[in-house]
Amino acid sequence: MSAGNQEVVLRHSPQARPVAADFALVERPVPAAAPRGGLRVRVIALSLDPYLGSRMRGKHMGEPAPAPGASLPGSAVAEVLDSDHPDFARGDYVVAETGWTNIAAIPASGARKVDPTLPLTAHLGVLGMPGLSAWVGITQLAKAKEGDVLTVDAAAGTVGGVAGQIVRALGGRAIGIAGGPEKCALVTQRYRFDACIDYRTENWAAALKQAVGEGSTIHFENVGLAVYEKAFPLLRLYGRVVLCGLADHYHSDGPPAAYPLGAVMGKRATVMGMVVYDYFNRHPEWVQLGSRWLREDKLVQVDDISDGLASAPAQFERMVRGQHLGKALVRIGPDKA
Amino acid sequence: MSAGNQEVVLRHSPQARPVAADFALVERPVPAAAPRGGLRVRVIALSLDPYLGSRMRGKHMGEPAPAPGASLPGSAVAEVLDSDHPDFARGDYVVAETGWTNIAAIPASGARKVDPTLPLTAHLGVLGMPGLSAWVGITQLAKAKEGDVLTVDAAAGTVGGVAGQIVRALGGRAIGIAGGPEKCALVTQRYRFDACIDYRTENWAAALKQAVGEGSTIHFENVGLAVYEKAFPLLRLYGRVVLCGLADHYHSDGPPAAYPLGAVMGKRATVMGMVVYDYFNRHPEWVQLGSRWLREDKLVQVDDISDGLASAPAQFERMVRGQHLGKALVRIGPDKA
Repeated sequence: MSAGNQEVVLRHSPQARPVAADFALVERPVPAAAPRGGLRVRVIALSLDPYLGSRMRGKHMGEPAPAPGASLPGSAVAEVLDSDHPDFARGDYVVAETGWTNIAAIPASGARKVDPTLPLTAHLGVLGMPGLSAWVGITQLAKAKEGDVLTVDAAAGTVGGVAGQIVRALGGRAIGIAGGPEKCALVTQRYRFDACIDYRTENWAAALKQAVGEGSTIHFENVGLAVYEKAFPLLRLYGRVVLCGLADHYHSDGPPAAYPLGAVMGKRATVMGMVVYDYFNRHPEWVQLGSRWLREDKLVQVDDISDGLASAPAQFERMVRGQHLGKALVRIGPDKA
Repeated sequence: MSAGNQEVVLRHSPQARPVAADFALVERPVPAAAPRGGLRVRVIALSLDPYLGSRMRGKHMGEPAPAPGASLPGSAVAEVLDSDHPDFARGDYVVAETGWTNIAAIPASGARKVDPTLPLTAHLGVLGMPGLSAWVGITQLAKAKEGDVLTVDAAAGTVGGVAGQIVRALGGRAIGIAGGPEKCALVTQRYRFDACIDYRTENWAAALKQAVGEGSTIHFENVGLAVYEKAFPLLRLYGRVVLCGLADHYHSDGPPAAYPLGAVMGKRATVMGMVVYDYFNRHPEWVQLGSRWLREDKLVQVDDISDGLASAPAQFERMVRGQHLGKALVRIGPDKA
């Protein structure tokens, strides 16, 4: 740990979907101490999230793209080495914006303490921002209850996977849509969805319709129009739609994903756009419920973790290509130093 | 009245937006008595509603188009001449599906008694299906309250006009969008909206933006994409959208009105499709409240009424062209026989 510090930065701004060659591993001085009022932390696992791809191209929520050579945005679970803030102490575990590095000096304001007796990566996955996204969409927007029938795409990912697990925990049915037999196996066997449709197979739309049966009551969208236009017509009257993400379109310069207003009227549907940032103040509620469900095995965290900071660019490329199986992470350091 | 009966029927199926020449006036026998369990009524005023245009082309809610020569769907206010149903008596005033005729023999099931001490045409307008549509969208879907800022198109029409009048009655601001100075004068002077933007003027979108000021909280859509794509971006975060109608698209074979899902996410908007038929059981609530507001002059009924059954085809053509000013109606008989 004391043998220098490394950081992954952009070599140049990605022009389209980022690839490993867009990144470079550079040497950095090790931060000597916690910044005034802040923390010095040892990064354990870095979260790779789909929105980062559009963020790197300056296409996420109006935030500027990081310049080549500058620190990349990245959330991680980390151990506090030194604290200059009364709420944190050496040895605490936190989730914080550390960037893609080994040792980070960070403000305390963005850090939140996490329970070290749970699997640490769960704090980035089912209990982290992806899990919060699912909880917000399913419980606060769609207000799921017993008897609901959910369709959700990117179901092998953490957001989609948690969405289905919550619906099932509340007494509903969950039908996932994912790409490939390995992902579908993950969805049905690990996440225990009622069904998973592989959209790479022929006639997947017919298979989805059959799995849905008498109609869905909630559709949770993570991907984009190709799934949406098959799933929307399967809604029952008064169906609810949560628009959580459009990952297929983040790396595309094609036309925006647009859907007919007349179909929304015909279904008497309610279509709700969500941005998880609006619900950060509700995060503790989900952490409390999700932690209990994790311990009761009603909720599972599945990691797709690569080893070492140098693996981050290739792991990121896998993630934006959708080749990961479970939560995409980079292992930076051991759980315990 | 006893000198025979007339009816307006389709001469042939309209290929596009219906015109007066698509209709014919034919002679019919006068129904001699109420049908078993039903009513014989004298039609006073016939309602002309935009959905009839798509209905005549077989493009409304999957209902079949009326065949040439067959009775046309049409709701009217009428006086009961003879009743074979215990709930109705000679001299009652009702709103019912009478078709486009002078004297109709109808089932009692579709008739509802109305208060003859109110202006009779109000039962087809602000207290009828158009007013119910506005009440449902504004109070049941958008759940308007004090401080809301509404944009609504076709604001000179009954649905749009009532939508704004309800928002104002609840303590909000209403900004209408309508075509031409006469309609805008109706909207601001008779309906007492805070502002009305004439979409036929240059820079109307900029004028709308200025009228909205810090952003709208509800958009109520009656027309179609041309207005929608200007009004949606003016919504504040968490804005609500009611999709009540897409009149511009009913007579078009062009591409459906589609709007980007990403914009819904960015606004954290809630977009709700409505079909007023679902709320018929709530109609008495609106009739009660709306009648009070009519008497208190918080709500006004403005009629655009042509004279005599023979005028119905030309009046219908005016209505589908949007040339009417207020509720489009045909006067068939006097209020009191």
